[in-house]
Amino acid sequence: MRSRFHQGLDELRARLLRMGGLAEQAVDRACQAYIDRDLARCHMVLEGETQINITEREIDEQAFDLLAMQQPMAVDLRFILAVTKINSDLERVGDQAVNIAERVMDMVELPKADLPVDVPRMAAAVSAMVRRSLESFIEGKAELAQAVLEMDNVVDRMKDEAFIVLVKTMNERPDVTRQALDALLIARNLERVADHATNIAEDVIFWVRGADVRHNAQQEETAAQVAGAHPTTDAH
Amino acid sequence: MRSRFHQGLDELRARLLRMGGLAEQAVDRACQAYIDRDLARCHMVLEGETQINITEREIDEQAFDLLAMQQPMAVDLRFILAVTKINSDLERVGDQAVNIAERVMDMVELPKADLPVDVPRMAAAVSAMVRRSLESFIEGKAELAQAVLEMDNVVDRMKDEAFIVLVKTMNERPDVTRQALDALLIARNLERVADHATNIAEDVIFWVRGADVRHNAQQEETAAQVAGAHPTTDAH
Repeated sequence: MRSRFHQGLDELRARLLRMGGLAEQAVDRACQAYIDRDLARCHMVLEGETQINITEREIDEQAFDLLAMQQPMAVDLRFILAVTKINSDLERVGDQAVNIAERVMDMVELPKADLPVDVPRMAAAVSAMVRRSLESFIEGKAELAQAVLEMDNVVDRMKDEAFIVLVKTMNERPDVTRQALDALLIARNLERVADHATNIAEDVIFWVRGADVRHNAQQEETAAQVAGAHPTTDAH
Repeated sequence: MRSRFHQGLDELRARLLRMGGLAEQAVDRACQAYIDRDLARCHMVLEGETQINITEREIDEQAFDLLAMQQPMAVDLRFILAVTKINSDLERVGDQAVNIAERVMDMVELPKADLPVDVPRMAAAVSAMVRRSLESFIEGKAELAQAVLEMDNVVDRMKDEAFIVLVKTMNERPDVTRQALDALLIARNLERVADHATNIAEDVIFWVRGADVRHNAQQEETAAQVAGAHPTTDAH
């Protein structure tokens, strides 16, 4: 039978997963709203933010209570600290979904423009990163988290490409400047979601390995620990 | 004589202040680089990021050690958790400074454009928010933190105004589209710095009052505790 403390940890984990589900759903809805020019979905994203914020607070409060309840073992302490950090990142993923929904609302008011950017492809890559970072957390697998770090470079490249073609569009087609700007800002928001997924993956690795891979801090050390691991060289 | 634990808390506080100083300096340098079209200052910001990342890690590690050392009292626990959250926000302030420096580097390559936006004024407001949020932390004063929350609305309005005039510029003067876009992205980066200052202020209030003002969660409760306090209505 599990102790009250460990039951608390289980509940904390379950809550964080619910939080992850809400954040993921918000991003997916915002991107679907972009594809369908769907104002109703935009409003769902805006309204969903309240629940995300409430859940964030509940998780932080429970983490605080667990830390106050008893002196956790080092591994549990790392887990709880990882949860509070992942929690913040998921809340900010929700904020990015709101930003995307707001840009879509702006676009829907304007004439539809055919833009040389594949937002759905970028959105799919970013959603996969969020999902896998949460999977790596559920399964406690640093290798899965490591794969997320590598995907971040792909998304960064997509954003850079979008930036180049959309600035060109703005220059050449002043009639769709604003639509191109909206698309560019959406690409940036998606890139930020990818950054948060990367942060989450780093926190999972911190928890699982007890090592800090952020900022390439202990790259050699980590590489020595786990052959084949390639900590990201990007700063977030 | 203070215990080893309390000496550790003092040191943690001193480190976080150093971190705050580095983040503030990065933003100030990036904005000065914008004013002077100064590539050398841009490079200083890019190089300074390494030290910010190292300091962030040191603070997190020390917070972890303090939590592991003994079972902290509730007030110390709240303090340590606030430090780890403020730490993350300061690191992200540094990231925004890097983003600004990168945009300035893009602008310096282009012909100088006279743009209808007062970036230095916005930068001054944002720097003041970061500085005051750290002051509220040093002095442990929730009222100072509250003032930061109110300043955030002013910065949001500045960013919205910048957005409107710069989109107009892009439409009317295709020759300076890219410069206007750079300025617009800088305005957004500054707004994000302001958001981080707001997060810091909220964490200070959480620590000092033991209440959570995020997302207007306990507005009535907090208002009852402190007459004249107006928790922000914005979500971050």
